[in-house]
Amino acid sequence: MDSYKKYLPEGVQDYLPQECYNKRQLESVIRNRFFISGYDEVETPNFEYFDVFASGIGSVRQEKMLKFIDSTGRIMVLRPDITMPIARMAAARLKKQKPPYRLFYIGNAYGYEPAHSMQQREFTQAGIELIGVPGPEADAEVIALAIEAVEDAGLKGFQIEIGQVDFFKGLMEECDLPFEKIEELRGHIDHKNCLEVELFLGACGLDGGVREKLMKLPSLYGGAEVLEQALRLSHSKRSEAAVENIRAIYTALCRYGYEKYISIDFSMLQSIDYYSGAIFRGITKDLGYPILTGGRYDGLLGEFGLALPATGFALGIKRVMIALERQGALQSIPQPQTVVSCAENGVELAYKAFSEMRKSGRRTELALWIKNTRDLKRYAAERGVQCWLFINAEGNMEGNEQI
Amino acid sequence: MDSYKKYLPEGVQDYLPQECYNKRQLESVIRNRFFISGYDEVETPNFEYFDVFASGIGSVRQEKMLKFIDSTGRIMVLRPDITMPIARMAAARLKKQKPPYRLFYIGNAYGYEPAHSMQQREFTQAGIELIGVPGPEADAEVIALAIEAVEDAGLKGFQIEIGQVDFFKGLMEECDLPFEKIEELRGHIDHKNCLEVELFLGACGLDGGVREKLMKLPSLYGGAEVLEQALRLSHSKRSEAAVENIRAIYTALCRYGYEKYISIDFSMLQSIDYYSGAIFRGITKDLGYPILTGGRYDGLLGEFGLALPATGFALGIKRVMIALERQGALQSIPQPQTVVSCAENGVELAYKAFSEMRKSGRRTELALWIKNTRDLKRYAAERGVQCWLFINAEGNMEGNEQI
Repeated sequence: MDSYKKYLPEGVQDYLPQECYNKRQLESVIRNRFFISGYDEVETPNFEYFDVFASGIGSVRQEKMLKFIDSTGRIMVLRPDITMPIARMAAARLKKQKPPYRLFYIGNAYGYEPAHSMQQREFTQAGIELIGVPGPEADAEVIALAIEAVEDAGLKGFQIEIGQVDFFKGLMEECDLPFEKIEELRGHIDHKNCLEVELFLGACGLDGGVREKLMKLPSLYGGAEVLEQALRLSHSKRSEAAVENIRAIYTALCRYGYEKYISIDFSMLQSIDYYSGAIFRGITKDLGYPILTGGRYDGLLGEFGLALPATGFALGIKRVMIALERQGALQSIPQPQTVVSCAENGVELAYKAFSEMRKSGRRTELALWIKNTRDLKRYAAERGVQCWLFINAEGNMEGNEQI
Repeated sequence: MDSYKKYLPEGVQDYLPQECYNKRQLESVIRNRFFISGYDEVETPNFEYFDVFASGIGSVRQEKMLKFIDSTGRIMVLRPDITMPIARMAAARLKKQKPPYRLFYIGNAYGYEPAHSMQQREFTQAGIELIGVPGPEADAEVIALAIEAVEDAGLKGFQIEIGQVDFFKGLMEECDLPFEKIEELRGHIDHKNCLEVELFLGACGLDGGVREKLMKLPSLYGGAEVLEQALRLSHSKRSEAAVENIRAIYTALCRYGYEKYISIDFSMLQSIDYYSGAIFRGITKDLGYPILTGGRYDGLLGEFGLALPATGFALGIKRVMIALERQGALQSIPQPQTVVSCAENGVELAYKAFSEMRKSGRRTELALWIKNTRDLKRYAAERGVQCWLFINAEGNMEGNEQI
């Protein structure tokens, strides 16, 4: 009979000691950064009711979600995202406290993504949510923390691209396109596919001012100069406000000292149903996919009964690890420094030595089944452990280092 | 329409900041204990092929597992246990390295358990596996680490009960009972239900020596004296070897200084298909269920193609937290110590102060949307933050503490 007993399904992975060590190190520096900056960690279940993600703002397409029917007949889903569960949790459990809520998480999310997206079916995300603050100061704080988290991770040569979904939405108010057409256009612009944009605009019969603006959108990418270019294209309050919002965020980040990390990109248009204002993503030349994405989502919490503005981001732990690996920045696990054993009547002293070495921060392993120094030396050598300590039958220490 | 959008399914939970903080603290001390003792952390996926758990040693009853059909039509299961995935992983990925393998994990497992078992559908376990060492030294090491992990957690008044599945199996060799009858008897003895044992033995027509031994089994519980009582009941090599095995483990643990934590219990007979030798569990008077269980499982890795002996344990993080809570031993999250804000032209200095305070280990939060000291003081007071720092329009610091 065919059996998968010894195999791993596609889209998931084992983390062996070396990789797991680096994953924990990365999670730990990110956790410390979020915590020291006033964010509290929370944890939500790995599976939830399907309904949490099935409808409304932020809803995920059914075919992208891993679902099951539980023993009571209800539809469960392995969470495709962690922001929505946190919105559910904040609405249900935190609303008695006065906002803002600063929350962070490090956990797994799940989904079926096309193979070329490099997204696994199970992937670890670390992220923050700043709930209850509407202005650009909050967006700048969240982006600054994204930068600091990536800096702490040790990644070199990354950029944060900032956009604003309202700029595009404002331009769309000037035309009269149905929703599906807007979506199609959004995709072409997001992919910076100027030819497709041109063909699309021709096919829609759009011309004149709006056509010109939309044609220019994919090139609205760069530093502070982009703000002026964008303002010249804006003839609606909504688009103008979007530009001024990005200007405020950009100015704040420059004052924080993060100018070198920031690019502005008004053609970045992913997930415009979920996000309601400034959006951003982190990229690195060492990876073809964003290492983090985030933005403002003022509408989402209202879906769960708590109408508060919010902004946040999520970082892909595995993606950062791959980029770090390509930069040669992963670490090796510190090997145990000492292996301890003893003759039969040396057990008390041997265990005491084991305990004391560990207490002093020395990574130490036992090998009490080895009863002589020759075998212990060989064992240490085979495992790359530098020191060995043996308590002999007279209760004396033998070894290759002063303890 | 009925919707569960705002609800949490039964058997899972949100960890709000306070509880999540304590969970991370607990996971962190346990992680450090395992790591410093020479164990390497590994991580396996939260879901796997059903086949991993469906048959052979360690197989789990279908109705206890949370399963789903993935988009390719294969049956997946949310892992009911983490030892089996580690056995799969070790067999597939580690066998080129020379054993022993010392591995640990902290992760979630899943299952449908009866409500009275206090087991959630999703629960976090921390555990170790020592793979490749057959003797009592390995069992004693693993039990010692269980004790140290619980000590590190800060739990008072716990006990480790040690048993041996071969003692019962040896006694069973003296009778001629079919498998189902043995299972029934095992259950009665495990529950220390002497009346049921007596009725069962009568109904089976067992009498004489074996009957007497089995009647005494539920009372084979206590300190070192139990070893002699057990030896007097043993007339098979298997039972005698089991007693001597427990004697060796018990003696070792006494030499490590852990006598006060250990009880011997030959009537502890859970999971005798999975475990092959010494078994143990940790209990505390503050909880009606074991906080940890473990034992030797020499047959399991062979199921995955790597015939190595192994021993290990898993600790229930939530159970330890409940016991700690009942002992009043949970901690409070350290609140942010300072909140920082500024006038419009003080942003550079304010962010610099924010960065420097964090660098010095001070938990600090920003509130840059607050533009005057009166509001900042009120904000700090509302949130229980002791210090506030404001950079005024002249670039001077105002605040209630020397920074």
